[in-house]
Amino acid sequence: MVREGYIFGCMIVNNTRFRVRYAETDQMGYVYYGNYAAFFEVGRVELLRDLGTSYKSLEDEGVMLPVRDFTTRYFRPAKYDQEIFLETRLEEMPGSRITFHYTLKSAEDEVLTTAVITLVFVDMKTQRPMKIPESLAKLMQPHFG
Amino acid sequence: MVREGYIFGCMIVNNTRFRVRYAETDQMGYVYYGNYAAFFEVGRVELLRDLGTSYKSLEDEGVMLPVRDFTTRYFRPAKYDQEIFLETRLEEMPGSRITFHYTLKSAEDEVLTTAVITLVFVDMKTQRPMKIPESLAKLMQPHFG
Amino acid sequence: MVREGYIFGCMIVNNTRFRVRYAETDQMGYVYYGNYAAFFEVGRVELLRDLGTSYKSLEDEGVMLPVRDFTTRYFRPAKYDQEIFLETRLEEMPGSRITFHYTLKSAEDEVLTTAVITLVFVDMKTQRPMKIPESLAKLMQPHFG
Amino acid sequence: MVREGYIFGCMIVNNTRFRVRYAETDQMGYVYYGNYAAFFEVGRVELLRDLGTSYKSLEDEGVMLPVRDFTTRYFRPAKYDQEIFLETRLEEMPGSRITFHYTLKSAEDEVLTTAVITLVFVDMKTQRPMKIPESLAKLMQPHFG
Repeated sequence: MVREGYIFGCMIVNNTRFRVRYAETDQMGYVYYGNYAAFFEVGRVELLRDLGTSYKSLEDEGVMLPVRDFTTRYFRPAKYDQEIFLETRLEEMPGSRITFHYTLKSAEDEVLTTAVITLVFVDMKTQRPMKIPESLAKLMQPHFG
Repeated sequence: MVREGYIFGCMIVNNTRFRVRYAETDQMGYVYYGNYAAFFEVGRVELLRDLGTSYKSLEDEGVMLPVRDFTTRYFRPAKYDQEIFLETRLEEMPGSRITFHYTLKSAEDEVLTTAVITLVFVDMKTQRPMKIPESLAKLMQPHFG
Repeated sequence: MVREGYIFGCMIVNNTRFRVRYAETDQMGYVYYGNYAAFFEVGRVELLRDLGTSYKSLEDEGVMLPVRDFTTRYFRPAKYDQEIFLETRLEEMPGSRITFHYTLKSAEDEVLTTAVITLVFVDMKTQRPMKIPESLAKLMQPHFG
Repeated sequence: MVREGYIFGCMIVNNTRFRVRYAETDQMGYVYYGNYAAFFEVGRVELLRDLGTSYKSLEDEGVMLPVRDFTTRYFRPAKYDQEIFLETRLEEMPGSRITFHYTLKSAEDEVLTTAVITLVFVDMKTQRPMKIPESLAKLMQPHFG
Protein backbone atom coordinates (compact mmCIF):
# COMPACT_ATOMS: atom_id res chain seq x y z
CA MET A 1 0.00 0.00 0.00
CA VAL A 2 1.29 3.40 -0.91
CA ARG A 3 -0.18 6.74 -0.07
CA GLU A 4 0.38 8.62 -3.28
CA GLY A 5 0.78 12.38 -2.93
CA TYR A 6 -0.92 13.55 -6.11
CA ILE A 7 -1.47 17.25 -6.45
CA PHE A 8 -5.20 16.97 -6.96
CA GLY A 9 -5.86 14.23 -4.47
CA CYS A 10 -4.66 11.09 -2.85
CA MET A 11 -5.37 7.45 -3.24
CA ILE A 12 -4.81 4.11 -1.61
CA VAL A 13 -3.08 1.52 -3.77
CA ASN A 14 -2.53 -2.20 -3.46
CA ASN A 15 -0.42 -4.36 -5.75
CA THR A 16 -1.11 -8.08 -5.88
CA ARG A 17 0.43 -10.74 -8.10
CA PHE A 18 -1.25 -13.88 -9.47
CA ARG A 19 -0.19 -16.83 -11.52
CA VAL A 20 -2.97 -17.96 -13.84
CA ARG A 21 -4.35 -21.38 -12.91
CA TYR A 22 -5.48 -23.98 -15.43
CA ALA A 23 -8.88 -23.86 -13.73
CA GLU A 24 -9.15 -20.21 -14.77
CA THR A 25 -8.57 -20.77 -18.49
CA ASP A 26 -11.14 -21.75 -21.08
CA GLN A 27 -11.02 -23.56 -24.38
CA MET A 28 -9.73 -20.40 -26.10
CA GLY A 29 -6.61 -20.77 -23.98
CA TYR A 30 -7.32 -17.48 -22.22
CA VAL A 31 -8.58 -16.68 -18.74
CA TYR A 32 -12.39 -16.98 -18.94
CA TYR A 33 -13.86 -13.46 -18.92
CA GLY A 34 -15.87 -14.14 -15.75
CA ASN A 35 -12.85 -15.36 -13.81
CA TYR A 36 -11.19 -11.95 -13.58
CA ALA A 37 -13.84 -11.10 -10.97
CA ALA A 38 -12.00 -13.30 -8.48
CA PHE A 39 -8.71 -11.46 -9.12
CA PHE A 40 -10.43 -8.12 -8.54
CA GLU A 41 -11.99 -9.47 -5.35
CA VAL A 42 -8.55 -10.46 -4.04
CA GLY A 43 -7.20 -7.01 -4.92
CA ARG A 44 -9.74 -5.14 -2.82
CA VAL A 45 -9.48 -7.64 0.03
CA GLU A 46 -5.72 -7.17 0.14
CA LEU A 47 -6.08 -3.38 0.01
CA LEU A 48 -8.30 -3.58 3.11
CA ARG A 49 -5.77 -5.87 4.78
CA ASP A 50 -3.02 -3.32 4.05
CA LEU A 51 -5.11 -0.78 5.96
CA GLY A 52 -5.09 -3.01 9.02
CA THR A 53 -8.57 -4.45 8.70
CA SER A 54 -10.13 -7.17 6.57
CA TYR A 55 -13.24 -7.91 4.61
CA LYS A 56 -13.81 -10.87 6.89
CA SER A 57 -13.84 -8.66 10.00
CA LEU A 58 -16.39 -6.40 8.31
CA GLU A 59 -18.67 -9.40 7.85
CA ASP A 60 -18.01 -10.46 11.42
CA GLU A 61 -19.26 -7.00 12.47
CA GLY A 62 -22.46 -7.48 10.46
CA VAL A 63 -21.53 -5.50 7.35
CA MET A 64 -21.81 -6.98 3.87
CA LEU A 65 -20.36 -5.48 0.70
CA PRO A 66 -22.31 -6.78 -2.29
CA VAL A 67 -21.23 -5.57 -5.72
CA ARG A 68 -23.48 -2.94 -7.32
CA ASP A 69 -21.64 -2.15 -10.59
CA PHE A 70 -18.93 -3.98 -12.44
CA THR A 71 -17.38 -2.63 -15.62
CA THR A 72 -14.38 -4.20 -17.24
CA ARG A 73 -12.55 -3.87 -20.54
CA TYR A 74 -10.31 -6.57 -21.93
CA PHE A 75 -7.32 -5.37 -23.96
CA ARG A 76 -5.14 -8.47 -24.12
CA PRO A 77 -5.83 -11.96 -22.87
CA ALA A 78 -4.16 -13.38 -19.77
CA LYS A 79 -2.91 -16.89 -20.46
CA TYR A 80 -2.24 -20.08 -18.55
CA ASP A 81 0.73 -19.98 -16.15
CA GLN A 82 1.29 -16.30 -16.86
CA GLU A 83 2.26 -14.03 -13.99
CA ILE A 84 -0.11 -11.09 -13.84
CA PHE A 85 0.04 -7.94 -11.74
CA LEU A 86 -3.04 -6.25 -10.38
CA GLU A 87 -3.12 -2.66 -9.18
CA THR A 88 -6.17 -1.83 -7.06
CA ARG A 89 -6.87 1.82 -6.37
CA LEU A 90 -9.25 3.53 -3.99
CA GLU A 91 -9.37 6.99 -5.54
CA GLU A 92 -11.82 8.71 -3.24
CA MET A 93 -13.13 8.48 0.28
CA PRO A 94 -16.13 6.13 0.28
CA GLY A 95 -19.52 7.15 1.70
CA SER A 96 -22.33 4.64 1.39
CA ARG A 97 -20.59 3.15 -1.64
CA ILE A 98 -17.01 2.22 -2.27
CA THR A 99 -15.44 2.22 -5.73
CA PHE A 100 -12.28 0.37 -6.68
CA HIS A 101 -10.32 1.02 -9.87
CA TYR A 102 -8.20 -1.73 -11.33
CA THR A 103 -5.39 -2.17 -13.83
CA LEU A 104 -4.16 -5.68 -14.58
CA LYS A 105 -0.79 -5.90 -16.32
CA SER A 106 1.60 -8.49 -17.69
CA ALA A 107 5.22 -8.83 -16.51
CA GLU A 108 6.10 -6.75 -19.59
CA ASP A 109 3.91 -3.94 -18.26
CA GLU A 110 1.27 -4.33 -20.95
CA VAL A 111 -2.26 -3.50 -19.82
CA LEU A 112 -4.38 -6.66 -20.00
CA THR A 113 -7.59 -5.49 -18.36
CA THR A 114 -9.03 -2.47 -16.59
CA ALA A 115 -12.06 -2.46 -14.34
CA VAL A 116 -14.16 -0.31 -12.05
CA ILE A 117 -16.21 -1.98 -9.33
CA THR A 118 -18.63 -0.29 -6.96
CA LEU A 119 -19.85 -2.06 -3.82
CA VAL A 120 -22.50 -1.03 -1.33
CA PHE A 121 -22.28 -1.22 2.44
CA VAL A 122 -25.23 -3.27 3.65
CA ASP A 123 -26.34 -3.93 7.21
CA MET A 124 -26.73 -7.73 7.50
CA LYS A 125 -29.50 -7.45 10.08
CA THR A 126 -31.73 -4.99 8.29
CA GLN A 127 -30.52 -5.94 4.80
CA ARG A 128 -30.54 -2.20 4.09
CA PRO A 129 -27.79 0.05 2.71
CA MET A 130 -25.78 1.87 5.33
CA LYS A 131 -22.91 4.36 5.57
CA ILE A 132 -19.32 3.16 5.71
CA PRO A 133 -18.64 1.82 9.22
CA GLU A 134 -16.87 4.34 11.50
CA SER A 135 -13.95 1.98 12.17
CA LEU A 136 -13.22 1.61 8.46
CA ALA A 137 -13.69 5.30 7.74
CA LYS A 138 -11.08 6.12 10.39
CA LEU A 139 -8.54 3.90 8.69
CA MET A 140 -9.12 5.49 5.29
CA GLN A 141 -9.54 9.17 6.18
CA PRO A 142 -5.84 9.89 6.79
CA HIS A 143 -5.11 8.81 3.22
CA PHE A 144 -7.55 11.27 1.74
CA GLY A 145 -6.60 14.06 4.15
CA MET B 1 -37.32 -40.53 -10.93
CA VAL B 2 -37.95 -44.20 -11.27
CA ARG B 3 -38.29 -46.79 -8.59
CA GLU B 4 -36.39 -49.68 -10.06
CA GLY B 5 -37.51 -53.12 -8.99
CA TYR B 6 -34.22 -54.94 -8.85
CA ILE B 7 -34.23 -58.41 -7.39
CA PHE B 8 -31.60 -57.66 -4.80
CA GLY B 9 -32.81 -54.25 -3.87
CA CYS B 10 -34.26 -50.97 -4.97
CA MET B 11 -32.89 -47.59 -5.78
CA ILE B 12 -33.94 -44.04 -6.50
CA VAL B 13 -32.76 -42.67 -9.82
CA ASN B 14 -32.71 -39.21 -11.32
CA ASN B 15 -31.71 -38.31 -14.87
CA THR B 16 -30.56 -34.78 -15.61
CA ARG B 17 -29.23 -33.32 -18.84
CA PHE B 18 -26.62 -30.56 -19.22
CA ARG B 19 -25.09 -28.68 -22.07
CA VAL B 20 -21.43 -27.92 -21.40
CA ARG B 21 -20.78 -24.20 -20.96
CA TYR B 22 -17.66 -22.43 -22.20
CA ALA B 23 -17.06 -21.38 -18.59
CA GLU B 24 -16.71 -25.05 -17.70
CA THR B 25 -13.99 -25.86 -20.24
CA ASP B 26 -10.28 -25.36 -19.84
CA GLN B 27 -7.41 -24.78 -22.23
CA MET B 28 -7.32 -28.50 -23.08
CA GLY B 29 -10.78 -28.02 -24.61
CA TYR B 30 -12.33 -30.37 -22.06
CA VAL B 31 -14.50 -29.75 -19.03
CA TYR B 32 -12.08 -28.88 -16.19
CA TYR B 33 -11.86 -31.87 -13.86
CA GLY B 34 -13.08 -29.87 -10.87
CA ASN B 35 -16.17 -28.61 -12.69
CA TYR B 36 -17.91 -31.98 -12.77
CA ALA B 37 -18.59 -31.47 -9.06
CA ALA B 38 -21.27 -28.91 -9.98
CA PHE B 39 -22.98 -31.41 -12.30
CA PHE B 40 -23.02 -34.02 -9.55
CA GLU B 41 -24.45 -31.43 -7.13
CA VAL B 42 -27.29 -30.69 -9.53
CA GLY B 43 -27.97 -34.42 -9.93
CA ARG B 44 -28.51 -35.01 -6.22
CA VAL B 45 -30.49 -31.80 -5.80
CA GLU B 46 -32.85 -32.85 -8.59
CA LEU B 47 -33.18 -36.34 -7.11
CA LEU B 48 -34.32 -34.75 -3.85
CA ARG B 49 -36.72 -32.51 -5.77
CA ASP B 50 -38.17 -35.60 -7.49
CA LEU B 51 -38.92 -36.95 -4.02
CA GLY B 52 -40.98 -33.90 -3.21
CA THR B 53 -38.45 -32.05 -1.07
CA SER B 54 -35.39 -29.95 -1.81
CA TYR B 55 -31.91 -29.38 -0.57
CA LYS B 56 -32.88 -25.77 0.06
CA SER B 57 -35.70 -26.81 2.39
CA LEU B 58 -33.27 -29.01 4.30
CA GLU B 59 -31.06 -25.99 4.90
CA ASP B 60 -34.09 -23.93 5.85
CA GLU B 61 -34.80 -26.59 8.51
CA GLY B 62 -31.28 -26.25 9.87
CA VAL B 63 -29.69 -29.27 8.21
CA MET B 64 -26.48 -29.01 6.18
CA LEU B 65 -25.09 -31.68 3.91
CA PRO B 66 -21.34 -31.13 3.52
CA VAL B 67 -19.44 -33.57 1.31
CA ARG B 68 -17.34 -36.15 3.14
CA ASP B 69 -15.94 -38.30 0.29
CA PHE B 70 -15.72 -37.67 -3.42
CA THR B 71 -14.32 -40.23 -5.82
CA THR B 72 -14.49 -39.83 -9.55
CA ARG B 73 -13.00 -41.54 -12.58
CA TYR B 74 -12.71 -39.88 -15.96
CA PHE B 75 -13.05 -42.18 -18.98
CA ARG B 76 -13.66 -39.73 -21.81
CA PRO B 77 -13.65 -35.96 -21.77
CA ALA B 78 -16.83 -33.92 -21.97
CA LYS B 79 -16.37 -31.10 -24.47
CA TYR B 80 -17.73 -27.63 -25.08
CA ASP B 81 -21.39 -27.43 -26.18
CA GLN B 82 -21.78 -31.21 -25.80
CA GLU B 83 -25.03 -32.51 -24.36
CA ILE B 84 -24.30 -34.80 -21.44
CA PHE B 85 -26.61 -37.05 -19.47
CA LEU B 86 -26.19 -37.63 -15.76
CA GLU B 87 -27.72 -40.56 -13.91
CA THR B 88 -27.78 -40.10 -10.13
CA ARG B 89 -28.56 -43.15 -8.03
CA LEU B 90 -29.37 -43.53 -4.35
CA GLU B 91 -28.67 -47.23 -3.91
CA GLU B 92 -29.39 -47.65 -0.21
CA MET B 93 -31.39 -46.03 2.51
CA PRO B 94 -29.24 -43.34 4.15
CA GLY B 95 -28.57 -43.23 7.89
CA SER B 96 -26.25 -40.53 9.15
CA ARG B 97 -24.57 -40.43 5.75
CA ILE B 98 -26.02 -40.39 2.26
CA THR B 99 -24.17 -41.79 -0.74
CA PHE B 100 -24.91 -40.94 -4.36
CA HIS B 101 -23.63 -42.95 -7.33
CA TYR B 102 -23.21 -41.25 -10.66
CA THR B 103 -22.78 -42.14 -14.31
CA LEU B 104 -22.29 -39.36 -16.82
CA LYS B 105 -22.81 -40.30 -20.46
CA SER B 106 -22.68 -38.78 -23.92
CA ALA B 107 -25.65 -38.71 -26.29
CA GLU B 108 -24.07 -41.81 -27.87
CA ASP B 109 -24.34 -43.57 -24.54
CA GLU B 110 -20.60 -43.65 -23.93
CA VAL B 111 -19.60 -43.43 -20.28
CA LEU B 112 -17.69 -40.19 -19.71
CA THR B 113 -17.31 -40.18 -15.95
CA THR B 114 -18.41 -42.14 -12.91
CA ALA B 115 -18.46 -40.90 -9.35
CA VAL B 116 -19.42 -41.77 -5.80
CA ILE B 117 -20.10 -38.97 -3.34
CA THR B 118 -20.89 -39.32 0.35
CA LEU B 119 -22.37 -36.44 2.33
CA VAL B 120 -22.99 -36.12 6.03
CA PHE B 121 -26.10 -34.75 7.72
CA VAL B 122 -24.98 -31.92 10.01
CA ASP B 123 -27.07 -29.94 12.47
CA MET B 124 -26.40 -26.28 11.69
CA LYS B 125 -26.88 -25.18 15.29
CA THR B 126 -24.60 -27.67 16.98
CA GLN B 127 -22.37 -28.16 13.93
CA ARG B 128 -22.43 -31.86 14.80
CA PRO B 129 -23.34 -34.87 12.64
CA MET B 130 -26.92 -36.06 12.99
CA LYS B 131 -29.17 -38.77 11.64
CA ILE B 132 -31.18 -38.24 8.47
CA PRO B 133 -34.14 -35.95 9.27
CA GLU B 134 -37.41 -37.84 9.81
CA SER B 135 -39.23 -35.94 7.07
CA LEU B 136 -36.63 -36.93 4.49
CA ALA B 137 -36.45 -40.53 5.71
CA LYS B 138 -40.19 -40.86 5.25
CA LEU B 139 -39.94 -39.81 1.62
CA MET B 140 -37.17 -42.32 0.89
CA GLN B 141 -38.26 -45.34 2.87
CA PRO B 142 -41.03 -46.45 0.46
CA HIS B 143 -38.43 -46.73 -2.29
CA PHE B 144 -36.26 -49.12 -0.27
CA GLY B 145 -39.19 -51.24 0.83
CA MET C 1 -36.26 -16.41 -30.40
CA VAL C 2 -38.68 -13.75 -31.43
CA ARG C 3 -38.30 -11.11 -34.08
CA GLU C 4 -39.79 -8.09 -32.42
CA GLY C 5 -41.32 -5.54 -34.75
CA TYR C 6 -40.47 -2.32 -32.94
CA ILE C 7 -41.23 0.88 -34.75
CA PHE C 8 -37.70 2.22 -34.54
CA GLY C 9 -35.95 -1.01 -35.24
CA CYS C 10 -35.80 -4.71 -34.76
CA MET C 11 -33.97 -7.03 -32.49
CA ILE C 12 -33.25 -10.69 -31.93
CA VAL C 13 -34.24 -12.02 -28.54
CA ASN C 14 -33.52 -15.23 -26.68
CA ASN C 15 -35.03 -16.29 -23.37
CA THR C 16 -33.19 -18.84 -21.25
CA ARG C 17 -33.99 -20.13 -17.80
CA PHE C 18 -31.54 -21.23 -15.11
CA ARG C 19 -31.78 -22.69 -11.67
CA VAL C 20 -29.04 -21.34 -9.39
CA ARG C 21 -26.54 -24.05 -8.41
CA TYR C 22 -24.89 -24.26 -5.01
CA ALA C 23 -21.57 -24.01 -6.84
CA GLU C 24 -22.58 -20.56 -8.03
CA THR C 25 -23.34 -19.11 -4.60
CA ASP C 26 -20.88 -17.59 -2.17
CA GLN C 27 -20.74 -17.16 1.58
CA MET C 28 -23.14 -14.22 1.38
CA GLY C 29 -25.76 -16.69 0.16
CA TYR C 30 -25.97 -14.92 -3.22
CA VAL C 31 -24.69 -15.83 -6.65
CA TYR C 32 -21.04 -14.70 -6.71
CA TYR C 33 -20.79 -11.56 -8.84
CA GLY C 34 -18.36 -13.17 -11.28
CA ASN C 35 -20.60 -16.17 -11.88
CA TYR C 36 -23.23 -14.23 -13.78
CA ALA C 37 -20.77 -14.17 -16.68
CA ALA C 38 -21.52 -17.85 -17.33
CA PHE C 39 -25.28 -17.15 -17.49
CA PHE C 40 -24.69 -14.35 -20.00
CA GLU C 41 -22.46 -16.67 -22.05
CA VAL C 42 -25.24 -19.26 -22.22
CA GLY C 43 -27.71 -16.57 -23.27
CA ARG C 44 -25.73 -15.49 -26.31
CA VAL C 45 -24.86 -19.07 -27.25
CA GLU C 46 -28.54 -20.00 -27.22
CA LEU C 47 -29.43 -16.90 -29.24
CA LEU C 48 -26.98 -18.06 -31.91
CA ARG C 49 -28.45 -21.56 -31.76
CA ASP C 50 -31.94 -20.09 -32.29
CA LEU C 51 -30.59 -18.54 -35.50
CA GLY C 52 -29.60 -21.95 -36.78
CA THR C 53 -25.88 -21.74 -36.06
CA SER C 54 -23.73 -22.15 -32.95
CA TYR C 55 -20.77 -20.60 -31.26
CA LYS C 56 -19.04 -23.96 -31.57
CA SER C 57 -19.42 -23.98 -35.35
CA LEU C 58 -17.93 -20.48 -35.48
CA GLU C 59 -14.86 -21.78 -33.66
CA ASP C 60 -14.76 -24.80 -35.96
CA GLU C 61 -14.61 -22.33 -38.88
CA GLY C 62 -11.66 -20.55 -37.28
CA VAL C 63 -13.48 -17.60 -35.71
CA MET C 64 -13.09 -16.68 -32.04
CA LEU C 65 -15.27 -14.25 -30.11
CA PRO C 66 -13.32 -12.95 -27.12
CA VAL C 67 -15.06 -10.46 -24.84
CA ARG C 68 -13.97 -6.84 -25.23
CA ASP C 69 -16.30 -5.01 -22.79
CA PHE C 70 -18.43 -6.26 -19.95
CA THR C 71 -20.66 -3.96 -17.93
CA THR C 72 -23.13 -5.23 -15.41
CA ARG C 73 -25.30 -3.75 -12.70
CA TYR C 74 -26.68 -5.75 -9.79
CA PHE C 75 -30.10 -4.68 -8.50
CA ARG C 76 -31.15 -7.67 -6.43
CA PRO C 77 -29.24 -10.82 -5.59
CA ALA C 78 -30.02 -14.18 -7.18
CA LYS C 79 -30.11 -16.88 -4.54
CA TYR C 80 -29.53 -20.60 -4.28
CA ASP C 81 -32.10 -22.81 -6.02
CA GLN C 82 -33.91 -19.78 -7.40
CA GLU C 83 -35.24 -19.98 -10.94
CA ILE C 84 -33.96 -17.03 -12.93
CA PHE C 85 -34.93 -15.85 -16.39
CA LEU C 86 -32.42 -14.31 -18.77
CA GLU C 87 -33.41 -12.21 -21.77
CA THR C 88 -30.58 -11.75 -24.28
CA ARG C 89 -31.04 -9.11 -26.96
CA LEU C 90 -29.11 -8.36 -30.11
CA GLU C 91 -30.28 -4.81 -30.75
CA GLU C 92 -28.32 -3.97 -33.88
CA MET C 93 -26.65 -5.71 -36.77
CA PRO C 94 -23.07 -6.54 -35.78
CA GLY C 95 -20.08 -5.44 -37.87
CA SER C 96 -16.64 -6.26 -36.52
CA ARG C 97 -18.09 -6.28 -33.02
CA ILE C 98 -21.22 -7.81 -31.61
CA THR C 99 -23.05 -6.39 -28.59
CA PHE C 100 -25.51 -8.30 -26.44
CA HIS C 101 -27.89 -6.66 -23.97
CA TYR C 102 -29.14 -8.64 -21.01
CA THR C 103 -31.89 -8.51 -18.44
CA LEU C 104 -31.99 -11.17 -15.73
CA LYS C 105 -35.26 -11.48 -13.83
CA SER C 106 -36.84 -13.46 -11.04
CA ALA C 107 -40.00 -15.55 -11.44
CA GLU C 108 -41.81 -12.53 -9.97
CA ASP C 109 -40.52 -10.42 -12.86
CA GLU C 110 -38.19 -8.36 -10.69
CA VAL C 111 -35.03 -7.21 -12.43
CA LEU C 112 -32.03 -8.83 -10.75
CA THR C 113 -29.22 -7.80 -13.07
CA THR C 114 -28.66 -6.01 -16.36
CA ALA C 115 -25.59 -6.28 -18.53
CA VAL C 116 -24.07 -5.22 -21.83
CA ILE C 117 -21.32 -7.34 -23.36
CA THR C 118 -19.36 -6.60 -26.51
CA LEU C 119 -17.31 -9.29 -28.23
CA VAL C 120 -14.91 -9.02 -31.14
CA PHE C 121 -14.67 -11.35 -34.13
CA VAL C 122 -11.09 -12.63 -34.29
CA ASP C 123 -9.49 -14.77 -36.98
CA MET C 124 -7.86 -17.68 -35.14
CA LYS C 125 -5.07 -18.04 -37.72
CA THR C 126 -3.95 -14.42 -37.86
CA GLN C 127 -5.14 -13.58 -34.34
CA ARG C 128 -6.43 -10.31 -35.82
CA PRO C 129 -9.88 -8.73 -35.61
CA MET C 130 -12.11 -9.46 -38.60
CA LYS C 131 -15.58 -8.61 -39.87
CA ILE C 132 -18.55 -10.76 -38.95
CA PRO C 133 -18.39 -13.98 -41.03
CA GLU C 134 -20.65 -13.90 -44.12
CA SER C 135 -22.56 -17.02 -43.06
CA LEU C 136 -23.48 -15.47 -39.71
CA ALA C 137 -24.33 -12.09 -41.23
CA LYS C 138 -26.78 -13.81 -43.60
CA LEU C 139 -28.63 -15.36 -40.70
CA MET C 140 -28.92 -12.07 -38.84
CA GLN C 141 -29.65 -9.62 -41.63
CA PRO C 142 -33.31 -10.62 -42.14
CA HIS C 143 -34.00 -9.71 -38.53
CA PHE C 144 -32.67 -6.18 -38.95
CA GLY C 145 -34.36 -5.68 -42.33
CA MET D 1 10.74 -29.12 -2.83
CA VAL D 2 12.54 -31.53 -0.55
CA ARG D 3 13.98 -34.90 -1.34
CA GLU D 4 12.98 -36.88 1.69
CA GLY D 5 15.27 -39.77 2.58
CA TYR D 6 12.77 -42.30 3.83
CA ILE D 7 14.09 -45.76 4.53
CA PHE D 8 11.68 -47.53 2.23
CA GLY D 9 11.76 -45.01 -0.55
CA CYS D 10 11.94 -41.44 -1.59
CA MET D 11 9.49 -38.85 -2.66
CA ILE D 12 9.27 -35.39 -4.15
CA VAL D 13 7.37 -32.85 -2.06
CA ASN D 14 6.03 -29.38 -2.74
CA ASN D 15 4.45 -27.04 -0.21
CA THR D 16 2.16 -24.29 -1.43
CA ARG D 17 0.09 -21.81 0.55
CA PHE D 18 -3.28 -20.34 -0.40
CA ARG D 19 -5.63 -17.81 1.06
CA VAL D 20 -9.25 -18.79 0.48
CA ARG D 21 -11.01 -16.40 -1.89
CA TYR D 22 -14.64 -15.36 -1.54
CA ALA D 23 -15.18 -16.76 -5.05
CA GLU D 24 -14.23 -20.18 -3.70
CA THR D 25 -16.77 -20.27 -0.89
CA ASP D 26 -20.39 -21.30 -1.11
CA GLN D 27 -23.52 -20.48 0.83
CA MET D 28 -22.48 -22.88 3.59
CA GLY D 29 -19.54 -20.53 4.25
CA TYR D 30 -17.07 -23.25 3.28
CA VAL D 31 -14.91 -23.76 0.22
CA TYR D 32 -17.19 -25.46 -2.34
CA TYR D 33 -16.18 -29.11 -2.59
CA GLY D 34 -15.38 -28.86 -6.29
CA ASN D 35 -13.08 -25.87 -5.81
CA TYR D 36 -10.36 -27.85 -4.04
CA ALA D 37 -9.51 -29.30 -7.46
CA ALA D 38 -7.91 -25.96 -8.39
CA PHE D 39 -5.73 -26.02 -5.26
CA PHE D 40 -4.55 -29.53 -6.08
CA GLU D 41 -3.82 -28.45 -9.66
CA VAL D 42 -1.62 -25.61 -8.39
CA GLY D 43 0.18 -28.04 -6.07
CA ARG D 44 1.28 -30.40 -8.84
CA VAL D 45 2.13 -27.52 -11.18
CA GLU D 46 4.39 -26.00 -8.53
CA LEU D 47 5.99 -29.39 -7.85
CA LEU D 48 6.89 -29.61 -11.54
CA ARG D 49 8.23 -26.07 -11.43
CA ASP D 50 10.42 -27.01 -8.46
CA LEU D 51 11.91 -29.74 -10.64
CA GLY D 52 12.96 -27.16 -13.22
CA THR D 53 10.20 -27.76 -15.74
CA SER D 54 6.55 -26.74 -15.99
CA TYR D 55 3.20 -28.12 -16.98
CA LYS D 56 3.04 -25.39 -19.62
CA SER D 57 6.27 -26.56 -21.24
CA LEU D 58 4.89 -30.12 -21.35
CA GLU D 59 1.90 -28.85 -23.30
CA ASP D 60 4.18 -26.80 -25.54
CA GLU D 61 5.99 -30.09 -26.33
CA GLY D 62 2.70 -31.73 -27.27
CA VAL D 63 2.01 -33.64 -24.05
CA MET D 64 -1.31 -33.34 -22.21
CA LEU D 65 -2.00 -34.58 -18.69
CA PRO D 66 -5.73 -35.16 -18.29
CA VAL D 67 -6.95 -36.41 -14.93
CA ARG D 68 -7.91 -40.09 -14.80
CA ASP D 69 -8.83 -40.59 -11.10
CA PHE D 70 -9.61 -38.11 -8.38
CA THR D 71 -10.35 -39.18 -4.82
CA THR D 72 -10.69 -36.75 -1.98
CA ARG D 73 -11.85 -36.85 1.60
CA TYR D 74 -13.01 -33.80 3.51
CA PHE D 75 -12.26 -33.77 7.24
CA ARG D 76 -12.78 -30.15 8.15
CA PRO D 77 -14.01 -27.26 6.03
CA ALA D 78 -11.70 -24.55 4.73
CA LYS D 79 -13.27 -21.15 5.27
CA TYR D 80 -13.18 -17.72 3.73
CA ASP D 81 -9.92 -15.77 4.16
CA GLN D 82 -8.30 -18.74 5.88
CA GLU D 83 -4.66 -19.50 5.09
CA ILE D 84 -4.34 -23.11 4.01
CA PHE D 85 -1.24 -25.18 3.42
CA LEU D 86 -1.06 -27.82 0.72
CA GLU D 87 1.53 -30.61 0.66
CA THR D 88 1.82 -32.33 -2.72
CA ARG D 89 3.75 -35.60 -2.84
CA LEU D 90 5.01 -37.67 -5.73
CA GLU D 91 5.59 -40.97 -3.97
CA GLU D 92 6.77 -43.11 -6.85
CA MET D 93 8.43 -42.75 -10.22
CA PRO D 94 5.69 -42.27 -12.84
CA GLY D 95 5.43 -44.51 -15.92
CA SER D 96 2.51 -43.88 -18.24
CA ARG D 97 0.55 -42.46 -15.31
CA ILE D 98 1.53 -40.03 -12.60
CA THR D 99 -0.05 -40.03 -9.14
CA PHE D 100 -0.01 -37.13 -6.72
CA HIS D 101 -0.87 -37.42 -3.02
CA TYR D 102 -2.16 -34.39 -1.18
CA THR D 103 -2.63 -33.19 2.37
CA LEU D 104 -4.26 -29.81 2.95
CA LYS D 105 -3.82 -28.34 6.42
CA SER D 106 -4.81 -25.30 8.43
CA ALA D 107 -2.28 -22.95 10.06
CA GLU D 108 -2.93 -24.96 13.26
CA ASP D 109 -1.74 -28.09 11.45
CA GLU D 110 -5.18 -29.69 11.37
CA VAL D 111 -5.82 -31.87 8.35
CA LEU D 112 -8.62 -30.34 6.27
CA THR D 113 -8.58 -32.54 3.20
CA THR D 114 -6.60 -35.38 1.67
CA ALA D 115 -6.60 -36.40 -1.97
CA VAL D 116 -5.05 -38.72 -4.51
CA ILE D 117 -5.06 -37.73 -8.17
CA THR D 118 -3.81 -39.80 -11.09
CA LEU D 119 -3.16 -38.22 -14.46
CA VAL D 120 -2.30 -39.84 -17.78
CA PHE D 121 0.34 -38.72 -20.25
CA VAL D 122 -1.39 -38.19 -23.60
CA ASP D 123 0.19 -37.38 -26.96
CA MET D 124 -1.70 -34.36 -28.28
CA LYS D 125 -1.21 -35.35 -31.92
CA THR D 126 -2.37 -38.95 -31.69
CA GLN D 127 -4.65 -38.34 -28.67
CA ARG D 128 -3.29 -41.64 -27.33
CA PRO D 129 -1.70 -42.44 -23.97
CA MET D 130 2.09 -42.38 -23.95
CA LYS D 131 4.95 -42.99 -21.55
CA ILE D 132 6.33 -40.16 -19.44
CA PRO D 133 8.45 -37.90 -21.67
CA GLU D 134 12.18 -38.60 -21.42
CA SER D 135 13.01 -35.04 -20.39
CA LEU D 136 10.63 -35.20 -17.44
CA ALA D 137 11.74 -38.70 -16.43
CA LYS D 138 15.33 -37.46 -16.24
CA LEU D 139 14.37 -34.72 -13.81
CA MET D 140 12.50 -37.13 -11.55
CA GLN D 141 14.71 -40.20 -11.58
CA PRO D 142 17.41 -38.83 -9.26
CA HIS D 143 14.78 -38.36 -6.57
CA PHE D 144 13.71 -41.99 -6.70
CA GLY D 145 17.28 -43.30 -6.81
